[in-house]
Amino acid sequence: MPPRYEVIGITGLPEIRTGDDLGRLIVEAAAAQGTPLQEGDLLVVSQKIVSKSEGRVVRLADVSPSPAAQAMARELGKDPRLVELILRESRRVVRMDKGILIVETHHGWICANAGVDQSNVDLECASLLPEDPDRSAQVLREQVRGLTGVDHAVIVSDTFGRPWREGLTNVAIGIAGLLPIKNYLGAQDPAGHTLQATLLAVADELAGAAEPVMGKLNRVPATIIRGLPFERGEETSKALLRDPSRDLFR
Amino acid sequence: MPPRYEVIGITGLPEIRTGDDLGRLIVEAAAAQGTPLQEGDLLVVSQKIVSKSEGRVVRLADVSPSPAAQAMARELGKDPRLVELILRESRRVVRMDKGILIVETHHGWICANAGVDQSNVDLECASLLPEDPDRSAQVLREQVRGLTGVDHAVIVSDTFGRPWREGLTNVAIGIAGLLPIKNYLGAQDPAGHTLQATLLAVADELAGAAEPVMGKLNRVPATIIRGLPFERGEETSKALLRDPSRDLFR
Repeated sequence: MPPRYEVIGITGLPEIRTGDDLGRLIVEAAAAQGTPLQEGDLLVVSQKIVSKSEGRVVRLADVSPSPAAQAMARELGKDPRLVELILRESRRVVRMDKGILIVETHHGWICANAGVDQSNVDLECASLLPEDPDRSAQVLREQVRGLTGVDHAVIVSDTFGRPWREGLTNVAIGIAGLLPIKNYLGAQDPAGHTLQATLLAVADELAGAAEPVMGKLNRVPATIIRGLPFERGEETSKALLRDPSRDLFR
Repeated sequence: MPPRYEVIGITGLPEIRTGDDLGRLIVEAAAAQGTPLQEGDLLVVSQKIVSKSEGRVVRLADVSPSPAAQAMARELGKDPRLVELILRESRRVVRMDKGILIVETHHGWICANAGVDQSNVDLECASLLPEDPDRSAQVLREQVRGLTGVDHAVIVSDTFGRPWREGLTNVAIGIAGLLPIKNYLGAQDPAGHTLQATLLAVADELAGAAEPVMGKLNRVPATIIRGLPFERGEETSKALLRDPSRDLFR
């Protein structure tokens, strides 16, 4: 039997509001479309609906930009209220040039605009990343397990850019129930070489696998990855943060 | 009907040698395991077997390292013959520190060791990236089409590291028959925002989707992605190279 797995978008979710029981809505939507959640599924959920359910959406009219944010906004050609939100969500600015603002978030992610984003939220609002996306993933996992009894894993994903390569890819920013990194350290390949330092970021690859059925406009903010025997574990997304001492590009 | 697709590893391929007809071997192996290639499939093939079929494997005993390569090798703690190969495959050194050598290849990819790699090749050998992976993808596409009559697309993939995030991910380095970037530029999201600059690197996401069934040790060097209505086109992997003028990390 060849190794294989399936990627199934979950359609029919309503517009998510603060306080919504995301687990119940996902379980119901998956069942309604004839693909109820099963034992061993991996659920990939867009950061956007997690943030919405957690109330992490801010009205720009309520944001008073600091003088520093106003100065940066002028240089970047951005709305100063957005820059204010980005700075609040950031630990440090990594690069600021050419209208682009790359920061390190309080979680440790290095990305544009700290994940602060205006797409798919009400006009004149912006969404922030979840405060603790690993906790969000864990909460969602427990909600779904409570409702269905199935043991599964959860990835909270967002689309990040990267240096050198054009285009965004979906990556994991919160994880519950799977090991984010597959470790081939010290294993031998079929030719007899001992493989060195071969760590595969499977959580990012699977977040990416979910994106083509999610899309930005399709209202498919959650996806089931089914049939893949991923490695179970209780590590968090922190395992995906490269140690600064081993990073040549910070 | 929910949007969905399947990822199917192709097992049973023989050890690939220079001059092997990779298209025929893949078509036969896919058919033998009961999943013959179909119209609209996307075939993701590991760089390693493409390089092997193209004779891009070098015996280290045949490599005479230059003085420059010897000096760099001492500093990096690497085999000077490997460093010599890496430099030959490179346009420039991007970073060299902490035993890590990041270069820009002649293709324009920025990656560790120019893709020169000793895993899954004979001991005392190293494999190089294909000279022109887009051409390799196109040749493979035509071989498969000639044998099966089905219209499909091909990605040649390799596992690259990236700044800031731990672990490698599989990415596209050669492409035939699909648009590597999905462009949401100017589209409106359901809330009425005009999305700006939302380019998704679907070719990289799909190369990544293939990796969990490929693995490093499983001898599954080719994968079918089936059922995804990807955008057809004749762009090459060059579309995934970020313009240096818009890159803050070169």
